[in-house]
Amino acid sequence: MDSRSGAPTRRQLLSAIAKVGGTAALYQAMTTLGHAAETQFHGPPSLQGARPGASVIVLGAGLAGMLAAFELRKAGYKVTILEFQNRAGGRNWSLRGGDTYTELGGATQKVAFSPGNYLNPGPWRIPHHHRTLLHYCKQFGVALEPFIQFNHSGWVHSSEAFGGKPVRFNAAAADFEGNIAELLAKSVNAKALDDTVTQEDRDKLLEALKGWGMLDNDYKYSASLRASSHRGFERPGGGGVNGAPIPSKDLYSLHDVLDPQVWTSMAFFMGHEMQTTMFQPVGGMDMIGKAFAKQVEGLITYNAKVSKIAQDDKGVAVTWTDTVTGKTADAKADFCVCTIPLGVLGQMDLQVTDEMMAAIKAVPYSGQVKIGLEMKRRFWEEDDFIYGGHSFTDQEIALISYPNNNMFGNGPAVLLGAFAREMGAYRLAGLTPEQRIEAALAQGSVIHPTSYRKEFASGASVAWSRVPWTLGCCARWNEDTRKEHYQTLVGLDRRIVLAGEHASYVGCWMEGALLSSIDAITRLHKRALEA
Amino acid sequence: MDSRSGAPTRRQLLSAIAKVGGTAALYQAMTTLGHAAETQFHGPPSLQGARPGASVIVLGAGLAGMLAAFELRKAGYKVTILEFQNRAGGRNWSLRGGDTYTELGGATQKVAFSPGNYLNPGPWRIPHHHRTLLHYCKQFGVALEPFIQFNHSGWVHSSEAFGGKPVRFNAAAADFEGNIAELLAKSVNAKALDDTVTQEDRDKLLEALKGWGMLDNDYKYSASLRASSHRGFERPGGGGVNGAPIPSKDLYSLHDVLDPQVWTSMAFFMGHEMQTTMFQPVGGMDMIGKAFAKQVEGLITYNAKVSKIAQDDKGVAVTWTDTVTGKTADAKADFCVCTIPLGVLGQMDLQVTDEMMAAIKAVPYSGQVKIGLEMKRRFWEEDDFIYGGHSFTDQEIALISYPNNNMFGNGPAVLLGAFAREMGAYRLAGLTPEQRIEAALAQGSVIHPTSYRKEFASGASVAWSRVPWTLGCCARWNEDTRKEHYQTLVGLDRRIVLAGEHASYVGCWMEGALLSSIDAITRLHKRALEA
Repeated sequence: MDSRSGAPTRRQLLSAIAKVGGTAALYQAMTTLGHAAETQFHGPPSLQGARPGASVIVLGAGLAGMLAAFELRKAGYKVTILEFQNRAGGRNWSLRGGDTYTELGGATQKVAFSPGNYLNPGPWRIPHHHRTLLHYCKQFGVALEPFIQFNHSGWVHSSEAFGGKPVRFNAAAADFEGNIAELLAKSVNAKALDDTVTQEDRDKLLEALKGWGMLDNDYKYSASLRASSHRGFERPGGGGVNGAPIPSKDLYSLHDVLDPQVWTSMAFFMGHEMQTTMFQPVGGMDMIGKAFAKQVEGLITYNAKVSKIAQDDKGVAVTWTDTVTGKTADAKADFCVCTIPLGVLGQMDLQVTDEMMAAIKAVPYSGQVKIGLEMKRRFWEEDDFIYGGHSFTDQEIALISYPNNNMFGNGPAVLLGAFAREMGAYRLAGLTPEQRIEAALAQGSVIHPTSYRKEFASGASVAWSRVPWTLGCCARWNEDTRKEHYQTLVGLDRRIVLAGEHASYVGCWMEGALLSSIDAITRLHKRALEA
Repeated sequence: MDSRSGAPTRRQLLSAIAKVGGTAALYQAMTTLGHAAETQFHGPPSLQGARPGASVIVLGAGLAGMLAAFELRKAGYKVTILEFQNRAGGRNWSLRGGDTYTELGGATQKVAFSPGNYLNPGPWRIPHHHRTLLHYCKQFGVALEPFIQFNHSGWVHSSEAFGGKPVRFNAAAADFEGNIAELLAKSVNAKALDDTVTQEDRDKLLEALKGWGMLDNDYKYSASLRASSHRGFERPGGGGVNGAPIPSKDLYSLHDVLDPQVWTSMAFFMGHEMQTTMFQPVGGMDMIGKAFAKQVEGLITYNAKVSKIAQDDKGVAVTWTDTVTGKTADAKADFCVCTIPLGVLGQMDLQVTDEMMAAIKAVPYSGQVKIGLEMKRRFWEEDDFIYGGHSFTDQEIALISYPNNNMFGNGPAVLLGAFAREMGAYRLAGLTPEQRIEAALAQGSVIHPTSYRKEFASGASVAWSRVPWTLGCCARWNEDTRKEHYQTLVGLDRRIVLAGEHASYVGCWMEGALLSSIDAITRLHKRALEA
């Protein structure tokens, strides 16, 4: 393995293993080399040799559908895509100034953002380990830029701690760690852990707690320059005569830093999907959908509302209506890749097994609400020194997320004024678009009291439970539904296979849609060759 | 304060307070509003009304010197700058392909990096709260991009833990937190803290430890999907039939995660100067020096080696030699701002008080060593899924830092192969440039065993103890020298004032140089008006 001696590199080694033993052997080898655990993606599918004339109809021009079409056409299939909307991308979507959006219930919003600004109602950030998506972004020429997920300067707000006032994440997290370290050091010194931890490890532990938790020589966490070097200063160091820093006078209390808003924020940033480094496309998330669409140009029929999917021994017939002309037609193909969201699919006339129909109907969708607010200036940068990242709150809006593009810019910018889930989303979805903006402004003003309303220019909201073409944001599996329905849902139903984030364990992420699509078409291709 | 009612915004309020009560009142008000503690910068200095014909000579065209020249000229002074090197910027410096650098001892390196690639031997990252620097970057048109400081996927390597093998930061940090949480929960449940923590807070604490530390229902940290959702998976979730994730089979031991490399890495990211969001100039750190130099174009005399600084009641006389022509001259001015690093300054013929001379000689400089390695491809991105950020090691190189520009690019890229301090720096500085590269490759190969040598193209190193024009990297004050010498060092010595990072409490940072400069020229201007 010493490359100086001309021995094979890891890459060459893995490549050789893959050739001899296939993916399973490759995976085994990667694990041994300590490099697995990051992705289930091992390169684009290598589908070849479709039977002459074999055809596939793909339902839905989201990422899963377009990837299926792209790879199946490459394999030799005749491919067509039916798409309900007048654009490709599906939930990969950006709203810009001039766009119009009508939700279920009829409320229509005309977006008034300035040129270059956007809201990504659906996906908005890409983990570095979502290799499938990153692979195709590179292949299809989508430029990416960092999405500043973790910002120590963001605000944390709990209505039940810190007197209801927002506090900086760094101060709250430092005080949480300091208190945890002090309490554990106290336990160690009181010999409470002598039966559990060896003497050697107790010594190491005390050293670690002191260094990690910024404890003093008495293992106390106290107001000091040392604590301030993590939590922030009353006045930080400067230059010249008055350069000396002044430490924080007070620390937050144990009671306050134990508030769930503090440790859920800390745990959030340690979440596998949320860990740095994250990315976003330059110019809006829909740059990805547009790049995919360019690859399957000419294959997509837009404004096509599917009402029936039938199949027999010879093929699949899809009945659809042109929502512009009102004309109805049947589309036929040998096989079908269906990426229609389950809530919509379940209402169609489907020729699938009872088990498949039960699976389709078993999985509810979540109903996140996102609200974009255009502000006249970047007060979070200029006044609060926050560049990207999030502030968290226990109000309905759940968070404020700051734009990661055009930092230090002078013009107006769009921040994410709500990413509501659960009850908060339910409440906000029940409001009119105007009322949602008002709620976002009222709640956001708790975090940014002096600037939020003052700088507000315009807003737009998407309540996913009211999105006509998905009836929800993404599939919400639980342990029971996984056990009872997942394998049925992803299985081939004669000539039909489902794909999308709902047919994956990476739910709500574009990566899940793509990995599902690759798995589905790989099996479909195998089945087609056997047919 | 309700902006709906037309009441003043926070910004308007602060502006009004500043007008009435000056900076101190402004600071007081900012503290009350909860927004201080981020910077000592409150806008550029407002110097006006220099006496007609008054002149200042600035020694050194680093950031401190150029800022002094820029602001003093604006105030009406006749300003000249003497600079030892043939370029401006000082330690704000980037090495690029074609550059030649000769260190003390005579070793010369010709940098062979590909076009567009660079090493920043000095400053390389900008904290979001370094407002002075950010202010002037914006004013002078320096484009910034995120510097990915915190990367959960970086490697942590200790020769004394984990069998000497590098481990991912996320796994080590998650297991550290999990173990800490489990031990503290055990102490709480064993009633070891009943005298210290109230019953209500004990309940909150157990909930917090479970949620933050990923404990199970028995308050144990164990191999599980739950633990893997922070530390990483044996196989993460995917799509379709084999989509189910497989959790890590093993966790790191308490003994291993208590290794100082783990918790010092964790604490590092919580350090005030190191917290996200950080920035770097697009195109190399010297874009800042170049932008400053453009503002003081025509004021700088290059290749000017100062040997003597004299002063009397009427003015300052600086004796200098042109290092190209060998010609010696005297430059005279009413006042002098001297930014020459202390180790160099202490060897000159200086007409200052004994106390000032003692202060100048009291402060040693650190001797960091940086090594840039150009690699033929971005294997850390392609193979290890690391985009920016650092890997840490207890070897001499201390870390590997991955480039934050041109991510996903195909061409060669320069990573920072060493940022050595203390003994490691001492050792590396003693080697020839060729030996340093070999050491960096040998030590870096421990982190990236299969690619490091294989992909290596060329390297360059800067050992700051051998940099002829600074004789060190930056000033190393301690508590005693601060007490004895700091106020003398920053004080006006009749007509001479010192400025630079060494005259600040933000040592080793560009921000310290700028804040020091602003403070120095503000006092100098006051003195000049009194004269």
